[in-house]
Amino acid sequence: MNEFDIINKYFSKLNNNKSSLNLNDDVFFDKSNKLVLSVDTYVEKIHFLNFKKPDLVIRKIIRSSISDIVCKGVNPKFIFICASGNKKHFSKKNLKKIYNSIKKEQSTYKILVGGGDTVKSKNLTFSITSLGYSNKIVFRNKSNVNDDIYVTGNIGDSYVGLCLLKNKLKINKNISNYFVNSYYTPDIQFKLIKKLSSFASSSIDISDGLFADLDKLINNQNHSYKISLRNIPISNFLMKLIAIKKLKKIDFISKGDDYQILFTAPKSKEKVISNYSVKNKIRITKIGKILKGKDRSIILDDSRRQIFLKNKGYFHNF
Amino acid sequence: MNEFDIINKYFSKLNNNKSSLNLNDDVFFDKSNKLVLSVDTYVEKIHFLNFKKPDLVIRKIIRSSISDIVCKGVNPKFIFICASGNKKHFSKKNLKKIYNSIKKEQSTYKILVGGGDTVKSKNLTFSITSLGYSNKIVFRNKSNVNDDIYVTGNIGDSYVGLCLLKNKLKINKNISNYFVNSYYTPDIQFKLIKKLSSFASSSIDISDGLFADLDKLINNQNHSYKISLRNIPISNFLMKLIAIKKLKKIDFISKGDDYQILFTAPKSKEKVISNYSVKNKIRITKIGKILKGKDRSIILDDSRRQIFLKNKGYFHNF
Repeated sequence: MNEFDIINKYFSKLNNNKSSLNLNDDVFFDKSNKLVLSVDTYVEKIHFLNFKKPDLVIRKIIRSSISDIVCKGVNPKFIFICASGNKKHFSKKNLKKIYNSIKKEQSTYKILVGGGDTVKSKNLTFSITSLGYSNKIVFRNKSNVNDDIYVTGNIGDSYVGLCLLKNKLKINKNISNYFVNSYYTPDIQFKLIKKLSSFASSSIDISDGLFADLDKLINNQNHSYKISLRNIPISNFLMKLIAIKKLKKIDFISKGDDYQILFTAPKSKEKVISNYSVKNKIRITKIGKILKGKDRSIILDDSRRQIFLKNKGYFHNF
Repeated sequence: MNEFDIINKYFSKLNNNKSSLNLNDDVFFDKSNKLVLSVDTYVEKIHFLNFKKPDLVIRKIIRSSISDIVCKGVNPKFIFICASGNKKHFSKKNLKKIYNSIKKEQSTYKILVGGGDTVKSKNLTFSITSLGYSNKIVFRNKSNVNDDIYVTGNIGDSYVGLCLLKNKLKINKNISNYFVNSYYTPDIQFKLIKKLSSFASSSIDISDGLFADLDKLINNQNHSYKISLRNIPISNFLMKLIAIKKLKKIDFISKGDDYQILFTAPKSKEKVISNYSVKNKIRITKIGKILKGKDRSIILDDSRRQIFLKNKGYFHNF
């Protein structure tokens, strides 16, 4: 049973979809009180490799948390950090680093830490609550047949960073830093917040993997998707790496931790989106479209042959 | 360094007390958006003994979480549960029990689960976010000199329950059940929400221990307190237990997990409070008063001699 089965089977019945709540979305939205909220838990060795760089881990999990709010077209305003760990995790040296990281992220994303909780535990775990205020959000599961599918930024850099940190790949120091930074401090598409709801019919952030999150985006709908692998945007660094090391693009673009925004929009918005992208220097790439009918999703390779994926992303299998 | 030192030293500077936030309070209050929010983390072996009774553990941590909101005179409305654990913790059998417990608590306290997160981890940890909407709260650290100090309900039953679960005490089954229930399902003073702000000058819930929480209640003020041990309300069961086993009351009334409300009120409200208590059948007991000056707190025993406590309650020492 994975976490989604658990939530679907046992917990989605708990709130009866009252007052615009929807446990199938990644955020909680209470329209009458204009509250948008997200909760996430991060465990050492699962969501981050280790705590050798507490400053970077904190930045990563804060960005990952506010990304849930940002991808709904809402400004995150407050975050709350619950930390459980031992005295090594929370040494004075580490606390100073954590404090400075939080300060940096507060200033970059104009958020404030509203509170938190610190408890003693053998294992290191963070739970972050992020919230913002808005009378509307871009939902999941609201795309229409023939909507285009878009993704912001580049995909896959974060995963290369993880491979480097795990010594599964070796490359020269400078380029290595680029990828490791992408892993720890992904660029959240903060600028897009203002505009997203004016063109997107549905949205999600890419945390578990492009295809895993695409499946969630159309979950509970009678929809599938068609994606062309060659359209999926990757950085010049990753393009070069793939060429030099004779790797396969498909092995890098659905591993998660990208924190880019995946969204759908009607054909009629294509021009608006492309103009916006150019004007604001935000890479926004059309990667496919929504099809009618369930379980008919197609991923095409460079030669337009269909690819079948063994694993679409990261799941918490219990 | 304990958790309060950590928060004070490193994190209280993060939000500069903007927009009515106060990291020294147990809740976050954003007055302009009428939001009252609390986050808490619960770790197995620290906040609860074990997970042999998942149904009761869940009820305990939900009550403990909403207690933070209730003691501020605010109705809790939504909770969010982040759970990390392994497949034994989240077996189908346990999930059913957890689901049923949540349903019960939802109905008892008129709250809804708005979302959550489940992740895989060796250790069992829950983080709960509780929230309600209100344009005012009863703050901490707002008592005045000569204010009376009150406590709701009975103190100490929960700790006896914990001692029984740990086999540190042995008594007959029926009375044992009473105490164990007090440990797992403490009575939250839900009824008092409506009235609390009309008489209380400051309030806190008792989670870490009566005296530890009293210290927090007057933290950052130039105040002390005088408490008479004989006035601290205990149940008839605990009174009997103390008599039969020749125990000391002082050893039971500052151990925490009571989730009763500790509050201060001006002398002028004494009659109102006592009438309210009688009319609504909510035990509210005056246990002492606020004194002028720092570090002059006095606890008097039955013979009105001063007692000095070695340990005022539970702290997370790192």
